[in-house]
Amino acid sequence: MPHIQLPENVPGIRSLVMYRPDTGKPLYQLAQILLRDDSPLSQAERELIATYVSTKNTCTFCSSSHAAAARYLFQDEAQTVDLVLEDYQNAPISDKLKALLNIAGKVQTDARTVSDEDVQLARSFGANDRDIHDTVLIAATFCMFNRYVDGLATLTPTDADVYAQMGERMGTLGYVLPTKA
Amino acid sequence: MPHIQLPENVPGIRSLVMYRPDTGKPLYQLAQILLRDDSPLSQAERELIATYVSTKNTCTFCSSSHAAAARYLFQDEAQTVDLVLEDYQNAPISDKLKALLNIAGKVQTDARTVSDEDVQLARSFGANDRDIHDTVLIAATFCMFNRYVDGLATLTPTDADVYAQMGERMGTLGYVLPTKA
Repeated sequence: MPHIQLPENVPGIRSLVMYRPDTGKPLYQLAQILLRDDSPLSQAERELIATYVSTKNTCTFCSSSHAAAARYLFQDEAQTVDLVLEDYQNAPISDKLKALLNIAGKVQTDARTVSDEDVQLARSFGANDRDIHDTVLIAATFCMFNRYVDGLATLTPTDADVYAQMGERMGTLGYVLPTKA
Repeated sequence: MPHIQLPENVPGIRSLVMYRPDTGKPLYQLAQILLRDDSPLSQAERELIATYVSTKNTCTFCSSSHAAAARYLFQDEAQTVDLVLEDYQNAPISDKLKALLNIAGKVQTDARTVSDEDVQLARSFGANDRDIHDTVLIAATFCMFNRYVDGLATLTPTDADVYAQMGERMGTLGYVLPTKA
């Protein structure tokens, strides 16, 4: 049961942005710009960073929905998502993305621990300022979304098919403010 | 030294939203709507919640600047801010605000631990859905801002006067996207 009266049968963040659309609007704009607009990181890689951070925060709704979006965007390499969540250092991703996931993980735990060495390692594998910036902001943003969704105990579906449908919608339509369930 | 090339001599979040204004715009809109627009919580109370969470995250820039904004907004009761940061349970604030700070603290640590009992306690002191919603979203939002600012090692002034000036600007002008330092 959510801690406040939210639209019924609407899961996670959608119920919250429908409850308060004035804050919902910049939140969805942020997600759309950060995860869909131009970046040196692909949309699939950005959804993967969001999923990794949400998993570290044990946010079932965000980790399940963004994992589904990442799987949709990775297309034929959808299994990459699960291999990264299991053990990213040994997953079939670039050294650059591994170094960025290391930074994202530190932002989730204690952002002050991101060191010059962490950043230099990412640069040595080709990361530029925008890769590093976008990684940190995605990680920080999901530390917000995860807490917003869980702190108000929003509805969390348990059916994998529901998340697969969400992932396809997120991968095709992006982040469009919902006006109804 | 910031981890990426940011506008020189511009501190904290301001340097980041100048570096990437397209993400900066919804971030500042969110802060303005959440901390300045209508809410059952006063602007001073909302800045206090932001300060409390930023202090728990040990984010020097955010805790110092929002403490200064809260002191400015509390006017004659500016010392309330420091008494809350020292020991909010014994500070001269309402029982409702104490119960909301308890919720904000849980959102900062692990949002899943916000319990029905925590919410009921706040309601017993007069909190409504919007008080609870806004408290959780402010706490979550500052878990983002704190990580964004610290994860990129932005410039953190050490002079208390600099923060006092920031606090007055935040208390009078609110959150307006900077276009220059």
